[in-house]
Amino acid sequence: MKIVVTVSNEDEVRLAEKADIIEFRLDLGNFSFKTDKEKILTIRRKVDGGSFEGDENERLKKIVELSKLFEYVDLEVDVPEWVFEELKKNNKKIEIIESYHNFKETPNYLSLKDLVENRRGDILKIATLGKSFEDVKKITRILLDYEKVVAFLIGEKYSFTRVLSIFLGAPLIYCYVLKPKAPGQLELNFVYDLLKKVGLK
Amino acid sequence: MKIVVTVSNEDEVRLAEKADIIEFRLDLGNFSFKTDKEKILTIRRKVDGGSFEGDENERLKKIVELSKLFEYVDLEVDVPEWVFEELKKNNKKIEIIESYHNFKETPNYLSLKDLVENRRGDILKIATLGKSFEDVKKITRILLDYEKVVAFLIGEKYSFTRVLSIFLGAPLIYCYVLKPKAPGQLELNFVYDLLKKVGLK
Repeated sequence: MKIVVTVSNEDEVRLAEKADIIEFRLDLGNFSFKTDKEKILTIRRKVDGGSFEGDENERLKKIVELSKLFEYVDLEVDVPEWVFEELKKNNKKIEIIESYHNFKETPNYLSLKDLVENRRGDILKIATLGKSFEDVKKITRILLDYEKVVAFLIGEKYSFTRVLSIFLGAPLIYCYVLKPKAPGQLELNFVYDLLKKVGLK
Repeated sequence: MKIVVTVSNEDEVRLAEKADIIEFRLDLGNFSFKTDKEKILTIRRKVDGGSFEGDENERLKKIVELSKLFEYVDLEVDVPEWVFEELKKNNKKIEIIESYHNFKETPNYLSLKDLVENRRGDILKIATLGKSFEDVKKITRILLDYEKVVAFLIGEKYSFTRVLSIFLGAPLIYCYVLKPKAPGQLELNFVYDLLKKVGLK
């Protein structure tokens, strides 16, 4: 299990000491990519909770171009097949995190199951708006039934599902330093200390 | 959701400030029962991880006798029906925590399901030895499928399942002050701060 810190500037890179992986959010800032940690490349679109509003083909081309510098690349579930293929062709060892965001609701279990079973990425990341305990149950069942899935609910009230996900075997937990990058994201040092305390780190 | 502190002496009662409920372990010490918090009465037998080695009928009679002073009473799954009836007859509002301990293994899902469906207590507490991630999955499924169940794995390595249980709706989490009373029990202030941080307290 690895702790990811999502960063928007170089200061945050420097503060991410306790993280295993840095997620560089190129829609939020510019970076030199200098770090001895593993790196995730993400250019998040506005519709998925990011800031990128440019041309989609330009975005995909930029991702392919920069991917050589990274161990992981984040690709949303609607990204066309050629991008997945191109990335794997360029670097067999690259790990693709296929991401699904839903800021309106958490779909039912069967829809989520469908998402997982049709995934093309090495890891599937599911982030959906939490409204009730039923939503907690849906993602818990997904975590029980599938491996290499990160699944949690968006929203302050459901920040605990990020920890729940790790407890149930998720390979990654996304944290912040300085400023949360998503509603309910937890702070790096808090997560590190918690996982240390319960012996998971 | 309520935080329980299991105590073996008066010092621990005084240190349990952040707890909602005090579990008085009469097999471990003597008490005046002075507290403004809710109280659980427990006389744990050696076979269930406690220190009581006396006559079983004496134990049960003592539990019935003292129960008037308590909001909750802990009765193990093999305690005869008359004790449950007697407690409810004496005090309709008393909540019985029916407890199941297994220091050898975590039984399969169907056995645990059987336990839950045949419960006589208001709350069922399942504490079983954790050996693998499969055991985590078993108790997680139970927590998803039933309400008013506390289920966690015994052992340092699985202390996180105590938090997992709360995340999945368990009504109680058992903690310690000064000294753990069971392998993997978490410290009161740590649990309080964690639950506060994720908005569950």
